[in-house]
Amino acid sequence: MINIAILGFGTVGSGVAELIDRNIETIRRTVPSDIYVKYILDLRDFPGSRYQDRVVHDFDIILNDPDIRIICETMGGKEPARTFTEKALQRGISVCTSNKELVAAYGPALLRTARQNGCSYLFEASVGGGIPIIRPMNTSLTPEYITDIAGILNGTTNYIMTRMEHDGVSFEDALRQAQINGYAERNPEADVEGHDACRKIAILSSLMCGRTVRYEDIPCEGISRVTTDDFLYARELGMAIKLLGLSRRAEDGSTFYVRTAPFMVPASHPLHSVEDVFNAVFVHGNMVDNLMFYGRGAGKAPTASAVVSDILEEARTLGRNIPVNWSDEVMTLSDPAQESFRRFVRMKDADMSEIPAIFGQVRYVSPEGRPEGETAFITEMMTESQFDSAISRTSSVVSTMRLLG
Amino acid sequence: MINIAILGFGTVGSGVAELIDRNIETIRRTVPSDIYVKYILDLRDFPGSRYQDRVVHDFDIILNDPDIRIICETMGGKEPARTFTEKALQRGISVCTSNKELVAAYGPALLRTARQNGCSYLFEASVGGGIPIIRPMNTSLTPEYITDIAGILNGTTNYIMTRMEHDGVSFEDALRQAQINGYAERNPEADVEGHDACRKIAILSSLMCGRTVRYEDIPCEGISRVTTDDFLYARELGMAIKLLGLSRRAEDGSTFYVRTAPFMVPASHPLHSVEDVFNAVFVHGNMVDNLMFYGRGAGKAPTASAVVSDILEEARTLGRNIPVNWSDEVMTLSDPAQESFRRFVRMKDADMSEIPAIFGQVRYVSPEGRPEGETAFITEMMTESQFDSAISRTSSVVSTMRLLG
Repeated sequence: MINIAILGFGTVGSGVAELIDRNIETIRRTVPSDIYVKYILDLRDFPGSRYQDRVVHDFDIILNDPDIRIICETMGGKEPARTFTEKALQRGISVCTSNKELVAAYGPALLRTARQNGCSYLFEASVGGGIPIIRPMNTSLTPEYITDIAGILNGTTNYIMTRMEHDGVSFEDALRQAQINGYAERNPEADVEGHDACRKIAILSSLMCGRTVRYEDIPCEGISRVTTDDFLYARELGMAIKLLGLSRRAEDGSTFYVRTAPFMVPASHPLHSVEDVFNAVFVHGNMVDNLMFYGRGAGKAPTASAVVSDILEEARTLGRNIPVNWSDEVMTLSDPAQESFRRFVRMKDADMSEIPAIFGQVRYVSPEGRPEGETAFITEMMTESQFDSAISRTSSVVSTMRLLG
Repeated sequence: MINIAILGFGTVGSGVAELIDRNIETIRRTVPSDIYVKYILDLRDFPGSRYQDRVVHDFDIILNDPDIRIICETMGGKEPARTFTEKALQRGISVCTSNKELVAAYGPALLRTARQNGCSYLFEASVGGGIPIIRPMNTSLTPEYITDIAGILNGTTNYIMTRMEHDGVSFEDALRQAQINGYAERNPEADVEGHDACRKIAILSSLMCGRTVRYEDIPCEGISRVTTDDFLYARELGMAIKLLGLSRRAEDGSTFYVRTAPFMVPASHPLHSVEDVFNAVFVHGNMVDNLMFYGRGAGKAPTASAVVSDILEEARTLGRNIPVNWSDEVMTLSDPAQESFRRFVRMKDADMSEIPAIFGQVRYVSPEGRPEGETAFITEMMTESQFDSAISRTSSVVSTMRLLG
């Protein structure tokens, strides 16, 4: 019997307990002994729950019980999650987590503590919900010189984009629908402004380079300025609009461009058809070429599944450290102003003769039903600074969006 | 230094040596010591190759060198690959392979030898080329009660289907184009008749149930009877045609329906947009819901990447067995005649009044340009035996195809 404790009995934590009960027969096939949830730490009591007898309010009960070999931290937030995790790892108790905020902020320090104490710190559920992506990055992709990662990393915003595309509704209406369906928080800022996706691309970028990409260093734009008219143009171009976390090696390979922003995604790209609350991570390696990992990026059961996969791996490797290549050396990112994209540009009452002079060769797009007086086009590749200098030379630009690829 | 040997210096074997050289800096970050290819076993000599000094013709040189910790078997075929693998594992040398024929036929026996001798037998490259799918099945998905696997598992046939769909060419012309581009063998039978996909779904099904699904027990249809007219109807229906390996739990969960055949795939399914030589494996688990793993299913560098990922994992776990849940107990599959699908049916000069009597409620599809006198429709769900009995009651059926979902 391997005894575990769950810290935080919210959506994910209760999902973990329920999954272990429900799939115990399946789990027995691959783990040497049964997994038993001995403690649940929460401020609340859960009277009437089948787990009520296991609820404790004092972390030290868990920490001081030598039976506990694995702790599953599903509290969220930095504190007290960080302190609890650090203390557990110091005692050689392996920890796994769904807490992307903690992983993005303190991942390398916690990984070091785990390494020093012969236990493991795993965080599959921190990116992409139920999608296996962290473990493949740590194992399957270790032969690869990865040059690009592009991820649809936030289910809320992808749901909103899908509703705007298919139902022609406004951003506000799509957001309201997401809130009604429980896909968006009452305060949707972390999702809608891209902060959540930004933390996740920071984690993936860190694993890509083995150093720490700080999410504070990543240029981050959300989707609140995307309009139904943008989708009119996207449809004409055969493109979808997705909020992406992007990480690309600069030409010399030594550093990265990292960015979170809405992108137009061409139909030929595998991310194009990822819809609703699904997430996907596209990876390009120098030998394996293109890969994509697709699945549910959020939700109780899928996220719990990723957490339990970490629990089981820690159970199979008790007393050993599972290596994760992520040091706390901070990665200096490439200057975002030097990154190149093709651009989609909408102009109002533009002087058509000046467009080539300002933007170079462009490809016009003129869907029926576009706003009166609008001219729209796709540019060739331009650096951010070239593009900024171009739009400073005209007052006609209504909106603009980067293109993937 | 960890010394390894490569058995068979063909496309994949030479790709493994080249990948290790090319990405040595990346590999160093995640493996405790350097990987060095000490021997290459082949019948040929490779004069002028940078590896010529390492070529040997006698397997015993490798087997009797205590320096060798890992062997990479990229010979293909059953013998002598099986004997060499068995001997190496008996000495505690870990083996990894891209040899799907060997894995499908003798996987469980070789896994047992590895277990008994404290070493590992890994086979990521045997299914889906560069796509990480075997390792996720063995690790990430161990909490899951998997109910469905559906895979585009053969790049050659997917390339042919894509050319027929987009270019409107015949099967024969698309096959010829695949041969010219090096995507199809001169004798394309193993790909085109579904045998290759069948071995791969046998391996995936075995991992899904932990027992042995014999590929000889799997009903197998190829794509050689798919016509350009089928694509005319598919387009009208918004569907793609794909050769799929399918594995689904029967209602009582104790056994499986497994099948290889061409399917019509609706646009809402993530496999729909997997084109050209790309492969993808769709997995449905009871908690994680839908997942898909996408990438290059063949080719020198992607396949070598999967082999090297196994080498590196074996290098990180020297002296330990990496568990794989696959016993040699043979899985008795569900009676294929009881499996249900919706069916696409084409009839010539049909008596329209008898269609509902024979096939029940149907949905007609009438694209412009269809062959004269043809009637085509989609049925509701019917078991294979219901469907067989239905078509025995009319002589008008031209062709038929199953629908996914």
